[in-house]
Amino acid sequence: MERMRQALVAPKVVALVGVSKDLKKLSTRPWQFCQQHGFRGKLYLVNPLHKKVLGQIAYPSVSAIPEKVDHAYILLGTMLVEAALEDCIAAGVKVVSVLADGFAEAGDRGLERQGILVSRADAAGVMLIGPNSMGIVNTENSFVCTTNAAFKAESLTRGRLAVLSHSGSLIGTLISRGKARNIGFSKLISLGNEAQSCVGTVGLTLVDDKEIDGFVLFLETIRNPDKFAAFASAAKRLGKPVVAYMLGKSYEGQALSVSHTGAMTGEADAVSAFLAYHSIAEVSQFDALFEAPALLLKKAQLANRPRHATVVTTTGGGGAMVVDQLSIRGVELKGLSAASKSFFHEQNIPHGSGKLVDVTLAGAQYDVMKKAITQLMTDSETGLIIVAIGSSAQFNPELAVKPIIDAVTENLGAAPVVAFPLPIATRSMEMLEEAGVPCFGSVESCADSVSLFLGNKDSLLVDSSLAECDVTEINKRLDTILAKVKIGGAGGVLNEVDGNDIFAALGIAGPRQLFFPAQSELPISESKIYLEQGLSYPLVTKLVSKDLPHKSDYGAVVMNIWDNVQLDSAVVEMRARIKKLEPTAYIDGVLVQEMAKGLGEAIVGLRHDNLVGPVITVGAGGVLAEIYKDVSIRPAPVNLASARQMIGEIKGFAGLRGYRGKAKGDLEALAQLVTAISSLAIVGRITEAEINPVLVRADGVLMLDALICIGPKILQSRL
Amino acid sequence: MERMRQALVAPKVVALVGVSKDLKKLSTRPWQFCQQHGFRGKLYLVNPLHKKVLGQIAYPSVSAIPEKVDHAYILLGTMLVEAALEDCIAAGVKVVSVLADGFAEAGDRGLERQGILVSRADAAGVMLIGPNSMGIVNTENSFVCTTNAAFKAESLTRGRLAVLSHSGSLIGTLISRGKARNIGFSKLISLGNEAQSCVGTVGLTLVDDKEIDGFVLFLETIRNPDKFAAFASAAKRLGKPVVAYMLGKSYEGQALSVSHTGAMTGEADAVSAFLAYHSIAEVSQFDALFEAPALLLKKAQLANRPRHATVVTTTGGGGAMVVDQLSIRGVELKGLSAASKSFFHEQNIPHGSGKLVDVTLAGAQYDVMKKAITQLMTDSETGLIIVAIGSSAQFNPELAVKPIIDAVTENLGAAPVVAFPLPIATRSMEMLEEAGVPCFGSVESCADSVSLFLGNKDSLLVDSSLAECDVTEINKRLDTILAKVKIGGAGGVLNEVDGNDIFAALGIAGPRQLFFPAQSELPISESKIYLEQGLSYPLVTKLVSKDLPHKSDYGAVVMNIWDNVQLDSAVVEMRARIKKLEPTAYIDGVLVQEMAKGLGEAIVGLRHDNLVGPVITVGAGGVLAEIYKDVSIRPAPVNLASARQMIGEIKGFAGLRGYRGKAKGDLEALAQLVTAISSLAIVGRITEAEINPVLVRADGVLMLDALICIGPKILQSRL
Repeated sequence: MERMRQALVAPKVVALVGVSKDLKKLSTRPWQFCQQHGFRGKLYLVNPLHKKVLGQIAYPSVSAIPEKVDHAYILLGTMLVEAALEDCIAAGVKVVSVLADGFAEAGDRGLERQGILVSRADAAGVMLIGPNSMGIVNTENSFVCTTNAAFKAESLTRGRLAVLSHSGSLIGTLISRGKARNIGFSKLISLGNEAQSCVGTVGLTLVDDKEIDGFVLFLETIRNPDKFAAFASAAKRLGKPVVAYMLGKSYEGQALSVSHTGAMTGEADAVSAFLAYHSIAEVSQFDALFEAPALLLKKAQLANRPRHATVVTTTGGGGAMVVDQLSIRGVELKGLSAASKSFFHEQNIPHGSGKLVDVTLAGAQYDVMKKAITQLMTDSETGLIIVAIGSSAQFNPELAVKPIIDAVTENLGAAPVVAFPLPIATRSMEMLEEAGVPCFGSVESCADSVSLFLGNKDSLLVDSSLAECDVTEINKRLDTILAKVKIGGAGGVLNEVDGNDIFAALGIAGPRQLFFPAQSELPISESKIYLEQGLSYPLVTKLVSKDLPHKSDYGAVVMNIWDNVQLDSAVVEMRARIKKLEPTAYIDGVLVQEMAKGLGEAIVGLRHDNLVGPVITVGAGGVLAEIYKDVSIRPAPVNLASARQMIGEIKGFAGLRGYRGKAKGDLEALAQLVTAISSLAIVGRITEAEINPVLVRADGVLMLDALICIGPKILQSRL
Repeated sequence: MERMRQALVAPKVVALVGVSKDLKKLSTRPWQFCQQHGFRGKLYLVNPLHKKVLGQIAYPSVSAIPEKVDHAYILLGTMLVEAALEDCIAAGVKVVSVLADGFAEAGDRGLERQGILVSRADAAGVMLIGPNSMGIVNTENSFVCTTNAAFKAESLTRGRLAVLSHSGSLIGTLISRGKARNIGFSKLISLGNEAQSCVGTVGLTLVDDKEIDGFVLFLETIRNPDKFAAFASAAKRLGKPVVAYMLGKSYEGQALSVSHTGAMTGEADAVSAFLAYHSIAEVSQFDALFEAPALLLKKAQLANRPRHATVVTTTGGGGAMVVDQLSIRGVELKGLSAASKSFFHEQNIPHGSGKLVDVTLAGAQYDVMKKAITQLMTDSETGLIIVAIGSSAQFNPELAVKPIIDAVTENLGAAPVVAFPLPIATRSMEMLEEAGVPCFGSVESCADSVSLFLGNKDSLLVDSSLAECDVTEINKRLDTILAKVKIGGAGGVLNEVDGNDIFAALGIAGPRQLFFPAQSELPISESKIYLEQGLSYPLVTKLVSKDLPHKSDYGAVVMNIWDNVQLDSAVVEMRARIKKLEPTAYIDGVLVQEMAKGLGEAIVGLRHDNLVGPVITVGAGGVLAEIYKDVSIRPAPVNLASARQMIGEIKGFAGLRGYRGKAKGDLEALAQLVTAISSLAIVGRITEAEINPVLVRADGVLMLDALICIGPKILQSRL
């Protein structure tokens, strides 16, 4: 790993393959930037058409270079990349990055070209970055091996954050915007198509780097979720925060799926749940991407402290703006504790009333501000302190920030403090940040970061007590079912009776019912049979068919049946309707169930998301989940604590929680059902599993309709 | 007006009252800043304790100044303000601003002090700014008459926007942050408590100012909504955009009200509806407060153009970020039209696929970019064009922005163009803004502003066709009711029967019903009476009492009554329950109604908001409106078009619109009901009016329960 990291970001010998003679060409930029910023390693240029390029010897190939090359950047056009990679492999290069596009993003032919690169690199043990990569930058050793124009900057702002970005142009944006905020980066890597090396593998390569304190991810997608998760977990273990900005949150396209829960939650929701689950802080405000890490690094100081924020200010309007933005994001705000209040009184420090601690212009005096901050920092009832600094920050930086800095440095380890200067106050920010006080350039980024800092998403993690399902039993039942039904290589849906059977293996019960397999298409008049078996009216009857996953849409369900005559005619009518609407649907038989009443309905579904793998979704029943997007989603499986938390997030369950005097439903039984269904994530053949609706009663839950989808291939589970 | 404006922002003779000898004191700042920035008017200092102050003659009073003073700024402590104001009045000063706090915000005594100032100023025809005002700044003539430290800046950035702010510190924040964005201001006024002069009056004083193109409001509340509205309407007439940032969006405190709709929508919702109604652009992102106006000034260019946006970029990742943020805000995005697509093909300009027009690095060539922008600008199918510029904007401003500038200046009046440079690119922005291309410093502010620009809130305006209610008839009915019921000076609630009567005057019908007034508290066994009147079972019965506005919370409603025996016992039980729970409640009688069935329920309510006056709210029925905040709110009254629009915003009406094959409800009848109830806004005595629920049927709507609140005083209506 250490050697790979060196070849990736601190190579001693580098080959730039395909550098033009024309300084205006993009391909000359890595050479220009390395020269300009003073890279000390050796830079060889490769260009078979010329003996000299940019005043330097040009070699006909990487293999022709007289030294062992660690790292090569291929700057050639799409069609020349494969041969150049072969040349690099032959020369024993460890890391190869590729600029050209025209690969996986360019249709089937491109995908094929990309596949060849990956298999060649894998076979040779080469780390491949890109294609479609704008290169790699290490500000520590001025290895500025990129085509991004932003690195024309006179100097690079060094820092202790690493950037991993799908977009190459964004590494330039980050270096430019970060610089304006005194925030620099240690390494920046443009990952492009992630053909072979992905966020996960590159992250794992860098995670131990002692020059890196935290990671900044600009994501267009998630590839290789298992590697991604491994990197996230390593970063967490080392206490290195990972902050992510994810594009595509607005995509209207939902996941392709048979289940309702699948149709309701798109990939964006699944990705957000995945990031939260792996303790990655997802920001919605772009600036928070580089401003949040400094705050997240203070997490240890929050141990044993309440998860709320206290806003201190000398300027009422500015402080109120911070309070407002925090409240909108659900951050709990706290005024002075009783102890702090009496201290402020004793010391005659104004503090206003309510949640904003407004020390007014009195706070412009060094002593007053220092005492106020010190008291709050050392009060065990304080969570995080946010100081909103007024106009003095701009023209009297010493005056405005000295008391804050002194209070913080004299009370290291006490409650964490951050600052938001209302005006543009570069010098004040520099002084604060040097003293270890995280600063924010906008109220929105401040609020976003604080909300992430105080959030308690760690509790989402699966613990070892997860009640696993009996995979052997479920696979046995699946085999029996699959032996009798025809589900081809493309996968398909089980009928309700078979679906019920799988869920029954998880201990999930439905209403009392009878299944009457129908060999013929003749009308069935067997109502006495049902009744002899002891079912009582009212009943519901359904046609059972794997070709009708949403029965009610075709009128293949009839409810409120009160006698034999109704039952018989209902079955005849259903058959007639289906014969007309879906003539090719194969009817496995007729199901008759007792009508069940409950206090409310839920919908619970498992699916394998294209990007992040198995996810479990819970929602309010009826149309509420859909109309109001009232659903909760997590990577599956989940334990009981997570399932309870998910249920707690559903607003539409207010009635079941006893809202306005309504009878309470058995939400604990629902949580057990969620856990059980989520455990199907480890049965690789099941791609979707849904109960819609789950009837929630005062005592227990009942499955009213079940859907199981079998996939075309065995999916990898998360466990 | 002209003379008042001159005294306010361009006075010739100014008195600074209460200036200290000590340069460190706040009270010396206006003098310092006027000197520093070169104010050409005359500045007199008033200080009765010294003959000289700051090297200048100090006068013992304003009256003692040998010239007629236009404008005085009182910098004295709270208790000295009244006398100083009297002095100013005696000296014939036209505008007086007051720094001190300790007035309306400081309890009853302060409120009383403030009242005295206002009545004295009103009587004398003086314009009073504040108290609690940090003063007034005019960058045009360097009248920097403020205590805000931000004006220590070496130079002031002039501009064509006026700032009206409740918070004094925020005018410093705006000048500082605006400067960093090349955006300056013409006038900045700190309004403080708005004791007399408010946003509306000061706005009206400045609205004709030829140096002002638009207004920026930083609001902590709304005072004097009628004046506010008059200013907004004048600004609109003159084509001067007004942009507002409103604090207090997060306040948990809801409006104090009896009705459910009142409890569901807080002042923040009412204020937002009020601002939208008056065509004021409310921003959620602070930077948009000063970045949006330049774009809003281009509104005329959007006439006859579709209300959508096209994002053009040379950098995929950055362009995608803009697309994402726009989509999240509901902005419609458009790729190339057929005509533009074939032009791009002919010219061999890359454009990618989908909604983002990615011209790739080819756009780095002047000709390519200019042709692309020109084509889009002159295409009648284009709405707004947003150019996301990559790293080249930072180091090659000429290259990056020249083609955009040339395309825009050669096609004035064509589709509007804005720019968002991804890196920090000050010079590029300067060049673009000089050429009249609005720029944005963050993707969020860009998306916020574009969303406001393309929004179509104008349609919210009341038109003259509003079906007004018959005020005479309603007042007659009210008089009859009020003559018989006891509603004291503090106002109160009408019982349901009386409430029904008022709504009936608006043509709103309920189910068939009978009211049985009960003089005694004996059990009632009069069911035959009801049935002889021709009501048919099932019935619902309710106790009628103005002391029980939410009957069902006390069990004073029994539904599903199928025969005489049930009816009698229901009444006895209700009476017993109320006697126990609310022994002092006066029972007016028993109401018996036919049970009515419908397709869905709605809730409709009118209330007089503390800040902005009458508002009408529509929501989904049951608990949906409350749980999901699924409500729409507008200033009342509304016309039919607005009522339809409000109903269209309610997600929970999806079923009534025919979602998933459900039967459609008569939403047109609901819109008529909304319009009718909203017209009660003009009946000054009615402070709240609510129907909850309104039953929506396939044909018509039915009022199932009605609430009318009579206020302690006659309220002013909007009309």
